[in-house]
Amino acid sequence: MRATILYGPTDVRSETIDDPQIERPTDAIIRLSATCVCGSDLWNYRGIQDTPQPTPFGHEYCGIVEEVGSEVRNIKPGQFVIGSFFASDNTCPNCEAGYQSSCVHRELVRGAQAELMRVPLADGTLVATPEVPDAKYIPSLLAASDVLGTGWFAAVAANVQPGQTVAVVGDGAVGLLGVLSAAQLGATRIIAMSRHESRQKLAQEFGATDIVAERGDDGVASIKEMTGGIGADAVLECVGTSDSMQQAIGSIRPGGFIGYVGVPHGVNVDFQQTFFAHAGLLGGPAPVRRFLPDLIDLILHDKIDPGKVFDLELPLDQVAEGYAAMDERRAIKTLLRP
Amino acid sequence: MRATILYGPTDVRSETIDDPQIERPTDAIIRLSATCVCGSDLWNYRGIQDTPQPTPFGHEYCGIVEEVGSEVRNIKPGQFVIGSFFASDNTCPNCEAGYQSSCVHRELVRGAQAELMRVPLADGTLVATPEVPDAKYIPSLLAASDVLGTGWFAAVAANVQPGQTVAVVGDGAVGLLGVLSAAQLGATRIIAMSRHESRQKLAQEFGATDIVAERGDDGVASIKEMTGGIGADAVLECVGTSDSMQQAIGSIRPGGFIGYVGVPHGVNVDFQQTFFAHAGLLGGPAPVRRFLPDLIDLILHDKIDPGKVFDLELPLDQVAEGYAAMDERRAIKTLLRP
Repeated sequence: MRATILYGPTDVRSETIDDPQIERPTDAIIRLSATCVCGSDLWNYRGIQDTPQPTPFGHEYCGIVEEVGSEVRNIKPGQFVIGSFFASDNTCPNCEAGYQSSCVHRELVRGAQAELMRVPLADGTLVATPEVPDAKYIPSLLAASDVLGTGWFAAVAANVQPGQTVAVVGDGAVGLLGVLSAAQLGATRIIAMSRHESRQKLAQEFGATDIVAERGDDGVASIKEMTGGIGADAVLECVGTSDSMQQAIGSIRPGGFIGYVGVPHGVNVDFQQTFFAHAGLLGGPAPVRRFLPDLIDLILHDKIDPGKVFDLELPLDQVAEGYAAMDERRAIKTLLRP
Repeated sequence: MRATILYGPTDVRSETIDDPQIERPTDAIIRLSATCVCGSDLWNYRGIQDTPQPTPFGHEYCGIVEEVGSEVRNIKPGQFVIGSFFASDNTCPNCEAGYQSSCVHRELVRGAQAELMRVPLADGTLVATPEVPDAKYIPSLLAASDVLGTGWFAAVAANVQPGQTVAVVGDGAVGLLGVLSAAQLGATRIIAMSRHESRQKLAQEFGATDIVAERGDDGVASIKEMTGGIGADAVLECVGTSDSMQQAIGSIRPGGFIGYVGVPHGVNVDFQQTFFAHAGLLGGPAPVRRFLPDLIDLILHDKIDPGKVFDLELPLDQVAEGYAAMDERRAIKTLLRP
């Protein structure tokens, strides 16, 4: 089958490798309907995070179940399923608390930018749709696999409540879907921080009421000015750099929460700063599994259309261009068709 | 009047200075019934935090109103009042959100280790008891001024819920009263981290069900072992050092909150750590004003006896010994009688 292998910085290749096999009785093999390139893949693609050896890449997926292991009870061949980047048993105390991405048996799912993939802990990890969905829903269901679930977690972690003012730091796919999530959770004023016209436009389609193009101290000053000097009720930090976290800490009102979902890279904060800001913080790898049933339901009932974040669609074997386009910010997010 | 002046590291003196005066029409002057030495005073006393010039010290107080400014409406001479270390108007958006210690007009209250003191923004800052209380309640009402209110905030910030398992890092007065607060909020298992027998005993009187004497990795391992490998539902971080924060982050379950109220000194955390731990964080200078009415009520109805944290009582002019005893950990907390 065709699969995507990352060799090292900017060296990503579409290659033919062996089909995946059931390795453990709790595994499933799925045939991808679509997959995509994640902003977090770029940390490796750019060499900011090491890729020690050629690695099958990709962790966003939806598709049809081909085969299941002997201990899989609920997931069946022929079903259309969506899962997320951490496989989870969905029964341990952390899963029961809604933190499936901290499952005591969690496993990183890899190799999704391919025709077929193996998903561990299939019963806990995968959520099946009631029936095989119309093809028009595929991009949105694929978005639920990571970027929508992650943006949603940012909004939940930031404790977004109806009527609130929410600031969103980051205009990548996660930030844009953080805007959508905040709107769904009832925020009435959503300030998207973006300096890119096409992303500003999409943010507005997703529910942003205001745009702040300034960054750093100027960005903080704008948010403060828009909130009577107090700060936003909730902030979604969807980047993971020191600058973006400073933006978030500067923008939150005392007692408000920052939901941070960009994998932090070099973010060291002196806790005197968060202490005197009364800045609440909750983040981490999104427990997408917690939200998948509701998100699938919203998508299939046409309440949300998160698939709009895909502004480039390519055949799977052109994956290298998909990475390059996102790296150069020519595309927000690349969908790949096997 | 007698007052306490900090000159520099380990140099604290009881001196005669001019009586305080009403400076602004929103001020009140109160005659202290009792005052005390705070763990945070020791940061200066030890020279860890600079004291640029001789400074009137102390910020915990209760007593009888002597005089009020022309714009003070609710607080009246003769009332017994309690306030906290930040004066607040109690009407701004941050006060209304319950973060009076981030009041847009906040002012640090100083000079409480004295016979008389000036309290700014008296109407917003001070809470009067229904009548002048019996002398036996004075230590507990004084504790409400800071250490009880701060321990309570730690428990509220950590989102302690009935039935939960709570770990408390720090066995100073704030940590011990964090134990009491967690018990009042319904925690059923409260693990006090302490290696001092007298403090362990007081923690148990306040509601601790378990004691962990180990620190560092061993302390974390103990908490994990006691919680089935998952971690505590809530952690109260009541110290403010790098070690204590690491203890807290290591001990919290994914999705649980750390309420941190020890003023952080040199606490720099790589956010990858809190991210992958799913560790929630909320802290800051405690908005004691939010809790004062309820705390006073609990004290005057004999539901709680936080005054037990005072294990040394001295006349005001022996304040130097009060500091030394706490610095050398001979005393948990020193009460001073003017």
